[in-house]
Amino acid sequence: MAASTSLFSSSMHSGMPASRTVKCSENFLFCQWRMSCKQPSYSKLVYQNQSRFLGNERSLKWKQTDNVFQKEGIQCQALKTENMTFSVGKKFQLDDVIEAQQFDRDTLSAIFEVARDMEEIEKNSPGSQILRGYLMATLFYEPSTRTRLSFESAMKRLGGEVLTTENAREFSSASKGETLEDTIRTVEGYSDIIVMRHFESGAARRAAATAGIPVINAGDGPGQHPTQALLDVYTIEREIGKLDGIRVGLVGDLANGRTVRSLAYLLAKYTDVKVYFVSPGVVKMKDDIKDYLTSKGVEWEESADLMEIASKCDVVYQTRIQRERFGERIDLYEEARGKYIVNRAVLEVMQKHAVIMHPLPRLDEITVDVDSDPRAAYFRQAKNGLYIRMALLKLLLIGW
Amino acid sequence: MAASTSLFSSSMHSGMPASRTVKCSENFLFCQWRMSCKQPSYSKLVYQNQSRFLGNERSLKWKQTDNVFQKEGIQCQALKTENMTFSVGKKFQLDDVIEAQQFDRDTLSAIFEVARDMEEIEKNSPGSQILRGYLMATLFYEPSTRTRLSFESAMKRLGGEVLTTENAREFSSASKGETLEDTIRTVEGYSDIIVMRHFESGAARRAAATAGIPVINAGDGPGQHPTQALLDVYTIEREIGKLDGIRVGLVGDLANGRTVRSLAYLLAKYTDVKVYFVSPGVVKMKDDIKDYLTSKGVEWEESADLMEIASKCDVVYQTRIQRERFGERIDLYEEARGKYIVNRAVLEVMQKHAVIMHPLPRLDEITVDVDSDPRAAYFRQAKNGLYIRMALLKLLLIGW
Amino acid sequence: MAASTSLFSSSMHSGMPASRTVKCSENFLFCQWRMSCKQPSYSKLVYQNQSRFLGNERSLKWKQTDNVFQKEGIQCQALKTENMTFSVGKKFQLDDVIEAQQFDRDTLSAIFEVARDMEEIEKNSPGSQILRGYLMATLFYEPSTRTRLSFESAMKRLGGEVLTTENAREFSSASKGETLEDTIRTVEGYSDIIVMRHFESGAARRAAATAGIPVINAGDGPGQHPTQALLDVYTIEREIGKLDGIRVGLVGDLANGRTVRSLAYLLAKYTDVKVYFVSPGVVKMKDDIKDYLTSKGVEWEESADLMEIASKCDVVYQTRIQRERFGERIDLYEEARGKYIVNRAVLEVMQKHAVIMHPLPRLDEITVDVDSDPRAAYFRQAKNGLYIRMALLKLLLIGW
Repeated sequence: MAASTSLFSSSMHSGMPASRTVKCSENFLFCQWRMSCKQPSYSKLVYQNQSRFLGNERSLKWKQTDNVFQKEGIQCQALKTENMTFSVGKKFQLDDVIEAQQFDRDTLSAIFEVARDMEEIEKNSPGSQILRGYLMATLFYEPSTRTRLSFESAMKRLGGEVLTTENAREFSSASKGETLEDTIRTVEGYSDIIVMRHFESGAARRAAATAGIPVINAGDGPGQHPTQALLDVYTIEREIGKLDGIRVGLVGDLANGRTVRSLAYLLAKYTDVKVYFVSPGVVKMKDDIKDYLTSKGVEWEESADLMEIASKCDVVYQTRIQRERFGERIDLYEEARGKYIVNRAVLEVMQKHAVIMHPLPRLDEITVDVDSDPRAAYFRQAKNGLYIRMALLKLLLIGW
Repeated sequence: MAASTSLFSSSMHSGMPASRTVKCSENFLFCQWRMSCKQPSYSKLVYQNQSRFLGNERSLKWKQTDNVFQKEGIQCQALKTENMTFSVGKKFQLDDVIEAQQFDRDTLSAIFEVARDMEEIEKNSPGSQILRGYLMATLFYEPSTRTRLSFESAMKRLGGEVLTTENAREFSSASKGETLEDTIRTVEGYSDIIVMRHFESGAARRAAATAGIPVINAGDGPGQHPTQALLDVYTIEREIGKLDGIRVGLVGDLANGRTVRSLAYLLAKYTDVKVYFVSPGVVKMKDDIKDYLTSKGVEWEESADLMEIASKCDVVYQTRIQRERFGERIDLYEEARGKYIVNRAVLEVMQKHAVIMHPLPRLDEITVDVDSDPRAAYFRQAKNGLYIRMALLKLLLIGW
Repeated sequence: MAASTSLFSSSMHSGMPASRTVKCSENFLFCQWRMSCKQPSYSKLVYQNQSRFLGNERSLKWKQTDNVFQKEGIQCQALKTENMTFSVGKKFQLDDVIEAQQFDRDTLSAIFEVARDMEEIEKNSPGSQILRGYLMATLFYEPSTRTRLSFESAMKRLGGEVLTTENAREFSSASKGETLEDTIRTVEGYSDIIVMRHFESGAARRAAATAGIPVINAGDGPGQHPTQALLDVYTIEREIGKLDGIRVGLVGDLANGRTVRSLAYLLAKYTDVKVYFVSPGVVKMKDDIKDYLTSKGVEWEESADLMEIASKCDVVYQTRIQRERFGERIDLYEEARGKYIVNRAVLEVMQKHAVIMHPLPRLDEITVDVDSDPRAAYFRQAKNGLYIRMALLKLLLIGW
């Protein structure tokens, strides 16, 4: 479920001398007052309490008082207005973020605009209080420090607060046997939004179906990791300047990597995209994605020649070959692993405007000497994850 | 040890033209000023610094300055006043919360009133700053995510901050051998209140005896878990509307559950209460509690007929049969476990105003199809834990 | 890399009637305005946004607006000035805190002054917002709850926020194989300062070389733990009142304790210091430190007579004999461990002004009956760690 906030602006009273409007925007307060020095004392303070809809329990409260100066015990909270103006109040069209399939092209584009605003806030408005008073629970059933820190940083950069657990398995341990649904019902009582990482595919959807507050899927096992998919597409748009008409080379483990699968899925929303698959034989892209691309009219091609693909593409998306996928066949792993390395030789053939991406962590599938090249976009890509998560938290909690 | 806060209100100076009092109550600041526009410049800002008594180290500081506008480097902090008015400053009668026995009937009643206020704050005043500037250390010697998140949410809902540790055993590990007392002496230097979970009965009392700041027992092994006891009684009052003259059925593992033992203990403070014990033979309520009830004039009865008891009671308090209590005797566990299940058949015979409670987590001792019945109070009960903990943190840190 | 902040003060416009300067210092805002009531309306609000230099990404933004009252959407943040005035803006001379050797005598002295201010803030200004909007990442590759809580408390006491990880090894786990450098490049995107604990000597230096934000070494294996060294020297100055001309007895495990080694190193910066080494034969102070002291003209002496040394010294610095250093030779451990105990008999011979220090945790190398003596300074010493860390965070993030 989502939360909403609205603000209205008090219109000035007319016919008063020497009127002034002071916009004192700190935290949650928005106020205007007028003074006349010739008259005994005219004063007006209009303030609005930023309230929240949370489930059925909370209602939006407007409080308006004339001559507030004579009243006692007033709660006066400041709205922290950032430099950019949000059209606060319009509900985000999604209640939860569960899978990449939820996002159409227009929604992606609108989210990316908010992510750009978030970049401004992060750089120029330290101490932003947009999400002040909101509490996010990071319910991680398996540790993923990188993802957790990214979400927690996003929340705190917007003035929100965080409850953390990395041992959420304890909640539902076999010995105690609590269901995920029961856990969610408890945690939703302590927080305003849940960011959940789980080891089981489909867990996020179950959580969202139970929770009366928004749920963000931060990865559910072999299932989805939608914020990663969004930050990948956002990064391409930021780096290349467009999403239509681009050529993207997906390199490495294409069979197991949910990242490249989600990316291919989202790219199909754009026109005139061409996708190249470059992977060792044992970890080739599966037919379902190939069929999906074909059905959407997206051209794709498999290739064994990284150099040729690199010279053609706008984006070379490298991924890690995961040892755990090979079981006892270390020999196959070692062979697959060394096959397609992005190094300075690859950089040589790449176009000037093209970029290298990687979901991180990397081993040696991108050599360290590539890092200093401006086309190495993977650390900027990681940072974009922060902006995308800030945007989603903002949208789910207070709307557009 | 407890902390205290006071505020006074500056009276207006007389004989000045065009005077205004602006009450700008944001965060910790309370200020008043006057202006005259005909005279060169009269101004007065009275501000008070919200200080704290913490042990012997801190003293309440009042700062008052005339013509503060000409002065440099003034600290001007806003008092965030909530909608309800607390008579700030009167010390809570308890220094620490260690066991259910500390609470008499009047204290319980007063705490419950504060818990009601907390419910209002949580629902209508997001971003409350009542405990702003206070730091709580959650010193957990064994993990208990549910309890920890509840306390941390409580602190953050009131604007306080949290230091978390779930591996507090490291402090006092056998290899290093630090005493609990030494650990407490260090941690009290970093925080304003300690919430401690420990595996040893009596640990909380030892911590409180050492600490110069308040300690809350969040469960010490087989010992006490007083905030659970309080939230149970609070829930009964909230759900049934009274505590005198009620009938309560305690069901399940009555031998090992400290929850039901504490609850029975607290119920004895009320008049005309009747308690029914419904449990498998191997986990019957022990004699000490039965004797205690008898000594206090509380009627009690054992029964093997859950349906009959359910039809009579205001509260059916179900508990989990804990497998770990049965050791190798899985057969006894399985038998005990299936014996008294609260399901729709039980709901059928229950009175309309009655409720089902459970300390959570549950397994299948309450069937899932009961959840949607309005008489299923266990998730509301969990949420009440938040309010009780908010109330206790508030009372211990800044008093009534 | 370090961050910087500056503020300038608007000079008053002349020739305006009834002018007033209101210094409304809440959080990040500094503003001045004037009003004339006879003229239609003269108003001026000068406000400065406290911005930060963070790597190449952030630039200091000055915003100045006349007649701001007629403008919309202004971000108006208050500078929270504490009672003491900091000459905000002058950059701290260090970019990172990696080792005790970085600090010369003057820098130590200046840091200690800031630590004293921090003591004032912690006692009298709860809810300080000096570091509001700043985010510290505690990147702990091995748990050290005491050190972590001390840093996190320091950050929160100044209004800053914290991202915590105690399982940072997961980032660079052998199975995934991410380098420390890659991890740092990710984490620096989420935070403003990194406090790192690592199991490898030299790791902090590598992190600092990579990071575009400040790094504080919170202990890197057998390497350095510079904040402990600083708090030890700070404690001596606070307790004894001076650092020149003092006599310090270092007792216990002098071979393995990095604490006593760093302390000896820093004491050599002061004049007329005499150091006594009192340790069991198997854990004697190593020659490198002895040679260093000699080269700096610091007198030192080994002794087997704790009582004699205690009677002469200003500071008796006791340390724990660490069992893990003795491997299988439990007999040697037990012998070493019981050899030099600080007990009431030692207190008897100590001078009235002298103090006992210990880096904690302690076992029984100081008996508990010593704790109540005013000369037992070890818990005050632990608390001083908070002040030193507050000072370093403040200095690295916003300068002197």
